[in-house]
Amino acid sequence: MAQQVGTNLTWHEGAITREERQACLKQKGVTVWFTGLSASGKSTIAVALEQVLVNRGHAAYRLDGDNIRMGLNKNLGFSAEDRAENIRRIGEVSKLFADSGLITLSSFISPYVSDRDAVRALHEEAGIDYIEVHVDLPLEVAESRDPKGLYKKARAGEIKGFTGIDDPYEAPAKPEVKLATHEMSLEDCVAHMLKVLEERGALST
Amino acid sequence: MAQQVGTNLTWHEGAITREERQACLKQKGVTVWFTGLSASGKSTIAVALEQVLVNRGHAAYRLDGDNIRMGLNKNLGFSAEDRAENIRRIGEVSKLFADSGLITLSSFISPYVSDRDAVRALHEEAGIDYIEVHVDLPLEVAESRDPKGLYKKARAGEIKGFTGIDDPYEAPAKPEVKLATHEMSLEDCVAHMLKVLEERGALST
Repeated sequence: MAQQVGTNLTWHEGAITREERQACLKQKGVTVWFTGLSASGKSTIAVALEQVLVNRGHAAYRLDGDNIRMGLNKNLGFSAEDRAENIRRIGEVSKLFADSGLITLSSFISPYVSDRDAVRALHEEAGIDYIEVHVDLPLEVAESRDPKGLYKKARAGEIKGFTGIDDPYEAPAKPEVKLATHEMSLEDCVAHMLKVLEERGALST
Repeated sequence: MAQQVGTNLTWHEGAITREERQACLKQKGVTVWFTGLSASGKSTIAVALEQVLVNRGHAAYRLDGDNIRMGLNKNLGFSAEDRAENIRRIGEVSKLFADSGLITLSSFISPYVSDRDAVRALHEEAGIDYIEVHVDLPLEVAESRDPKGLYKKARAGEIKGFTGIDDPYEAPAKPEVKLATHEMSLEDCVAHMLKVLEERGALST
């Protein structure tokens, strides 16, 4: 039931599909979920990867604390319930971005298996590709880096419920990718992620 | 501080900017917010506009009840507080999509001025373009169409707090666009929206 309405004003019945959006962008939407300790290097890798992707003409977007915590999730605290809701909302938004066709890079400590598995399930139910990346830096190395002084404050008891100190980090059992950032350079990490995205068909249609 | 790392693996200090994302997509991110009564034609216009945009090679995405209500906002009901939170979250997500460079088409009844003005303020603070579109169909016409039988149920008291029946629709005082869908064809509405997007510079960089 194609309609032709005026010059170049065409549409068909029903809404644009994910496949049509992907064809327009010449790539496939995917969520790349970086999980790991504070100071493990999640955001550093996501920032560098986004740059390389955009420089190569791919549409990408990063979700992280900077654009989520003061916005969508500004009404959430640090209770167990709020932490779960924090990751749930981010998972839903990541799914929408991936559905739109973008390569979506989400960097959040996301310490609990149950929260991360719920995000994975959301994507699987929708038929959207999902890549869990464990940014796997040993606690003692992360703590020795401590760029924001947060580990120091947590050890001093000034921050409560800090992941790795007085709250657990539940490492993924079977992440799609593991990046040992104390053994790999940033370039190696970015190159590896590009290879994974290419192998999974995200960089073309 | 440009780095050259391997073949075609380049990045600079800091994160990709909105301008770089826009250059990659050859368009500017914008939120187009369709507000109006149930059955006024908001989603019909958004669906047709999205098709024309994508067919012309523009990256666009629609947010509406179908992809928000059962996902991000599935834990919200219809209390005054939840309605405000519903629009707040959608506004934050629309802003993220527009920031990513996409032409974002958000269709929600959004009956209250205060909620809509908060969404507008979010965009203005971030320097992101925002186009409020009042899909302005008289209540009696919307009610006579009633494609889902919702007005009938509301009149019968089976649905409480229905916009236009026992809950107010606060029309925008100064929307960027007003589409009187009882006097304009769908083609006219889509053509007008394209013209507005072009005039505001969203369709190129």
